[in-house]
Amino acid sequence: MQAENLPNSIAASATRITRDIEILSGPDYTTSNEAIRRYAYTDAYKRAVSYFEDSLSDLGFEVAYDPVGNLVARNRPVGEPVFGIGSHCDSNRNGGRYDGTLGVVAALELCRLNVEENLGLPFQLISWLEEEGSAYGEMLLGSRIAAGRVTDADLAAMRSVDNGIPFMEEAQAAGFEPERWRESREILDDLVGWIEIHIEQGRVLQDAEIQVGLVTAITGVIHADLVITGRADHAGATPMAGRVDAGVVAAEVILAVERLARAAGEGTVGTVGHVTLEPGLRNVVPGLARVALDIRSVDEDELTTVFETTVSAARSAASAHGATVEVVEHQRQPPTPMDSGLVDALASSATDLGVETMRMPSGAAHDTMMVAQRVPSAMLFVPCKDGISHSPAEQARPEDAALALLIALEAIRAPLNTRTAL
Amino acid sequence: MQAENLPNSIAASATRITRDIEILSGPDYTTSNEAIRRYAYTDAYKRAVSYFEDSLSDLGFEVAYDPVGNLVARNRPVGEPVFGIGSHCDSNRNGGRYDGTLGVVAALELCRLNVEENLGLPFQLISWLEEEGSAYGEMLLGSRIAAGRVTDADLAAMRSVDNGIPFMEEAQAAGFEPERWRESREILDDLVGWIEIHIEQGRVLQDAEIQVGLVTAITGVIHADLVITGRADHAGATPMAGRVDAGVVAAEVILAVERLARAAGEGTVGTVGHVTLEPGLRNVVPGLARVALDIRSVDEDELTTVFETTVSAARSAASAHGATVEVVEHQRQPPTPMDSGLVDALASSATDLGVETMRMPSGAAHDTMMVAQRVPSAMLFVPCKDGISHSPAEQARPEDAALALLIALEAIRAPLNTRTAL
Repeated sequence: MQAENLPNSIAASATRITRDIEILSGPDYTTSNEAIRRYAYTDAYKRAVSYFEDSLSDLGFEVAYDPVGNLVARNRPVGEPVFGIGSHCDSNRNGGRYDGTLGVVAALELCRLNVEENLGLPFQLISWLEEEGSAYGEMLLGSRIAAGRVTDADLAAMRSVDNGIPFMEEAQAAGFEPERWRESREILDDLVGWIEIHIEQGRVLQDAEIQVGLVTAITGVIHADLVITGRADHAGATPMAGRVDAGVVAAEVILAVERLARAAGEGTVGTVGHVTLEPGLRNVVPGLARVALDIRSVDEDELTTVFETTVSAARSAASAHGATVEVVEHQRQPPTPMDSGLVDALASSATDLGVETMRMPSGAAHDTMMVAQRVPSAMLFVPCKDGISHSPAEQARPEDAALALLIALEAIRAPLNTRTAL
Repeated sequence: MQAENLPNSIAASATRITRDIEILSGPDYTTSNEAIRRYAYTDAYKRAVSYFEDSLSDLGFEVAYDPVGNLVARNRPVGEPVFGIGSHCDSNRNGGRYDGTLGVVAALELCRLNVEENLGLPFQLISWLEEEGSAYGEMLLGSRIAAGRVTDADLAAMRSVDNGIPFMEEAQAAGFEPERWRESREILDDLVGWIEIHIEQGRVLQDAEIQVGLVTAITGVIHADLVITGRADHAGATPMAGRVDAGVVAAEVILAVERLARAAGEGTVGTVGHVTLEPGLRNVVPGLARVALDIRSVDEDELTTVFETTVSAARSAASAHGATVEVVEHQRQPPTPMDSGLVDALASSATDLGVETMRMPSGAAHDTMMVAQRVPSAMLFVPCKDGISHSPAEQARPEDAALALLIALEAIRAPLNTRTAL
């Protein structure tokens, strides 16, 4: 899929990315022997952040931390417009080498090319704190704070999953001033745009044999449980006609989710990943079923429609069997469209470089959802082997990341060159 | 539903049955404060068996135990033909007052009427050991041994669920000679017939407002797991078209079981009481599903057909999704028809007494399945409230049991009166 006319930088970038990833996968950068396990304020995490701090300082960046510990590195003084790049370098508890970290490494490499090629572009690199939520059980924590999507009460309630110590205390102990979290907003003030490079966490790019995906939107998501109440009866002694089988209703719900999500078309998915039948014995007709719904769409109307139609289908299936349904909604997050101008610029840049890309939604959440609340944002995906992520088996190709960052660099360079005000 | 011309004995029998059940529900007869928990060789179990031993001795019965501890009480010497009656007085671990015990109490009351009314009928009462399998995890243990449906190796392998002590050792410690288990066969040698009275464990009789059910057959059962292997993928990042969702196949299997069992008609049931999805996370497409099948029928062909058609349906659903199915069969027990002559005799007896009954299958297993291998057998069901059994909430009416035993008594008396050879 690679074009003939790509700059020579690709191979050199891939080599440096490989080295960065190798280093950050060493024993000093994880608290586990079997996986990458790296989260807020641990020594492993501090070392990873320091690695970026040192590398960026060497490139002439001024490196600082916001009040909660998001790393912010700039090659222009505060107050001047800059282009934002980055991702996160924390991992989930049983993680791999690439989720998040590859994006920060790619952003670092972008800064290296900026110096090497004397491009003089104004950058602000951010490595977001706690994207995975491994330390306090709260995803997108650093970017959420910067987007002002938390309250004092939220932060006061967060405690370490490991030891119950409050987030506020651990952040203070790490040398930060979390009580000043509102000032984290300022790190988005000077951004004229934002690009995050990340592994896909699916197998769409691999199946299409494409090296770089252009994210058009981060899907909205509804997480809810349907609790179906029937009646538990002896499986042998209860004729079919006398049953109120919650499991049969659950099965109809699973098929309804599948049917409705397929009918909604591309950009919408619906999943039942977990079902519990109670009492859960082979020889007892299920009296209760809990069905875990995960519905996502890039289109807010589709998202709502698939969810509501699923609930209606569940209610009528239940009613036909004499059962009832309770809906317990856990989370509802609208879709986050990426900035179409920026996505188009990335597409043009890829075309100029002769690289085949594809437009695709992101079904997973990313810090860019929060950045996009205030800044024109985009994401580039690179394939990960067999779609495996959140696992030590995670694999991605440094050359794909090198290609993605080159596309980003070209896209950032073009409009910045024309905006002489920068 | 009760006819006008029932003998006066009903009320007196119900009173005595109530007293027996009250006594056997007392703290000396259970090892739990919250339920009836009574199983082989425990003090609670020994006391229950002794209660029957004493009561039957008072009625002139000779009470003995076979080599494993089945209680066998006769009012004729060994070698003379007798009619078998009884059930079991062990309970499941969280049991109620009626499952099994009501049948032994009813059989005891039948022996009382035999004396009271000077009927002089030849009886052998059996209280089977370990019907529920609470002690060693092996159901129908006492009757299975008497029917010769075990091996030395089976018995040697059985161990206490509580403490791992072998069955053989515990039986010896209780004063029995389990190594002579083959001699247990002899307790069926003199039986000319067998009737067991038991609670229904379903709600068919309650719904029909009928006090006594005539069991036509104990259903055969197939217990199997279908293990469906698909592919686990990120629920957000995997489009619908690219999935191999084992949970969707499982849902199709659940609906197929329901549809096929309904189509097979009365006497056949099919249940999925337990389903496991793996990894079992809301945001992961299930890569594996285990579906627990319980299929029962009074008709062996229907039993096999429903099972095999379910497996075919599972295979084609799996194949349509790119998944595979493995079938793990755990148990296959053919149906046990009751003796039609004896069932007809019970029906006639009920008609003579002016009692409405209904013919029905037993969907649950009973010791009578084993007895029926060698002896013309029948069962009478009495309602239990809301079909609840294996629970401290179990409820049944002593007057229903009194009516059932009267029907049995009349049915036994008629042919025995004509068979003067007895």
